[in-house]
Amino acid sequence: MNVPATASAPVFLDCDTGVDDSLALAYLVSSPAVRLVGVGTVSGNTSSEQAARNSLDLLALLGAAEVPVAIGARDHLAKAYDGGVPHIHGQNGVGGVDLPPSPHEPVEVSAARLLIEMSHEHTGDLHIVAIGPLTNLALALREDPTLPSRIRAVTIMGGAARAPGNITAVAEANIGNDPEAAAAVVEAGWDLTIVPLDVTMENVLHEEDRLALLASDVPAARALGEILDHYFDFYLPTYGTRSSALHDPLAAAVAAGGVTPTVAPRVPVVVDTTDGPGRGQTVVDLRGQRLGAVDHPGVRTRVVLATDRQLGPHLLEVITAPTRRAVPVEG
Amino acid sequence: MNVPATASAPVFLDCDTGVDDSLALAYLVSSPAVRLVGVGTVSGNTSSEQAARNSLDLLALLGAAEVPVAIGARDHLAKAYDGGVPHIHGQNGVGGVDLPPSPHEPVEVSAARLLIEMSHEHTGDLHIVAIGPLTNLALALREDPTLPSRIRAVTIMGGAARAPGNITAVAEANIGNDPEAAAAVVEAGWDLTIVPLDVTMENVLHEEDRLALLASDVPAARALGEILDHYFDFYLPTYGTRSSALHDPLAAAVAAGGVTPTVAPRVPVVVDTTDGPGRGQTVVDLRGQRLGAVDHPGVRTRVVLATDRQLGPHLLEVITAPTRRAVPVEG
Repeated sequence: MNVPATASAPVFLDCDTGVDDSLALAYLVSSPAVRLVGVGTVSGNTSSEQAARNSLDLLALLGAAEVPVAIGARDHLAKAYDGGVPHIHGQNGVGGVDLPPSPHEPVEVSAARLLIEMSHEHTGDLHIVAIGPLTNLALALREDPTLPSRIRAVTIMGGAARAPGNITAVAEANIGNDPEAAAAVVEAGWDLTIVPLDVTMENVLHEEDRLALLASDVPAARALGEILDHYFDFYLPTYGTRSSALHDPLAAAVAAGGVTPTVAPRVPVVVDTTDGPGRGQTVVDLRGQRLGAVDHPGVRTRVVLATDRQLGPHLLEVITAPTRRAVPVEG
Repeated sequence: MNVPATASAPVFLDCDTGVDDSLALAYLVSSPAVRLVGVGTVSGNTSSEQAARNSLDLLALLGAAEVPVAIGARDHLAKAYDGGVPHIHGQNGVGGVDLPPSPHEPVEVSAARLLIEMSHEHTGDLHIVAIGPLTNLALALREDPTLPSRIRAVTIMGGAARAPGNITAVAEANIGNDPEAAAAVVEAGWDLTIVPLDVTMENVLHEEDRLALLASDVPAARALGEILDHYFDFYLPTYGTRSSALHDPLAAAVAAGGVTPTVAPRVPVVVDTTDGPGRGQTVVDLRGQRLGAVDHPGVRTRVVLATDRQLGPHLLEVITAPTRRAVPVEG
């Protein structure tokens, strides 16, 4: 069931950086299991432009300034960008923290185009990790319907199966911000792993973890500790303590094999694109799973409902490791 | 939180009898806490006509032949009756068992009309227990919008909050068979308790329970043991043993106070009436409930997510009690 079969597998990250996106980015750069080969940005937590700026600055801080970053869609397929969620992710998307500016700029091509280019460069090997609204992936599928044939696997943070949504009763933000794009991604027929709120809400970073980040020798880890400060306030009413859900980094860790899904049936998933109360819901068919996880024949989408361990300690270990480990250990 | 405040509270049952409806009917007749004052039938498990026949025969067997039974809607608000589910409830709705025919016939009025009449006869006291599609209740609300002002409380078996649906990924049969009617009932503003699949699937009757029914001195209990035989086959793949969920009797027991909800927040509920993948879903807003059940101010609908005990033993005890206890013990 583990998606990453080779050490240092090439990963393309699509993100709306974003506090928890920052953790995911740091994890993917720092994990020895994967090699981040490109980043596309989309509006969600913040604008796609700001997300690109944040991603570039973080990459520089992580010693990975050479990773290309492409600005993706500002607007979603069916609605314009609405200004993001500054009360959660801060005015600049990274908790209001002024990161040291990277001298690098985004590449000239769109995020969808960069993804297509990378799919040719790493044909059959590329793993897409998408942790924002899925607009760029939908645009790439529209531009090149042969894209899935060159992709090894796709892992997304998004949706809710049994858990409540976070922007409506049933819609999670990444899916709910662009249900039409999510529907296109779910229908594309590739090997898709959905990491929904059901598991991301159960993986929590605590204040002691944040203090450990702040005390790290690794500059990027210290910056993440600062970035999380504002985010921890937002989650206080949810968890009863200053802490945060680990939405995006859990998808990154599942993709990289750092956390292994233990309950993740391959089942029919339909995204609700109506204008009814279910708009943006990932309708996951979990009937017939009482006696154990059962895959539906021919279905390539799996929905992660449980994992082998808590992400927190592993995430801290990877992010605070003293040397950057994104460089392949062997040719 | 307990709805029944008085001993022997008057109850109107709306049902599509049905195997588990039969258990609910027997429970309501036998429980000393309530007094069954009328029955309306609706198509669902079987046709409304057949459901009336089954209800009359069961009432006679239970020594309650005087309870009026009214045939309600054959068709649902937006679609015609589709023939029911004989593979679950048998060709006649009661597992193919030939019950001793009651000499009584249904009353001349419709189920909606009988309900309205009973609401006048028991103004302020009547508790509606609805365990089929909600067509009759919607028709009654349409015929008399003042109905809720005379109703003490409404308890329905229907919907799914976190649990999967049973006719689609998210729709439960009672709601999914007539979403427009369910929407009208949810919007009517009365004190509404929803008993969804989340709890009914967790209350199970086992083969040893069925054998206990068959061995009872009470004729109705023995008949129920026979009626359940076919139903137990249907649930074999679900539970891995011959057994059955206790959908309808759980709603009856919650209404009668025999089982007490322990987690039942009053939260916004919207029925999905679109033609999308969520059609027939009870969209229950369970956000913000991590630290304990939180009622939303002004909301009168509660959704039962946990109860104080398993229904099975209590149900058996009530149904197999040697004397009929539906007659009020005091004036």
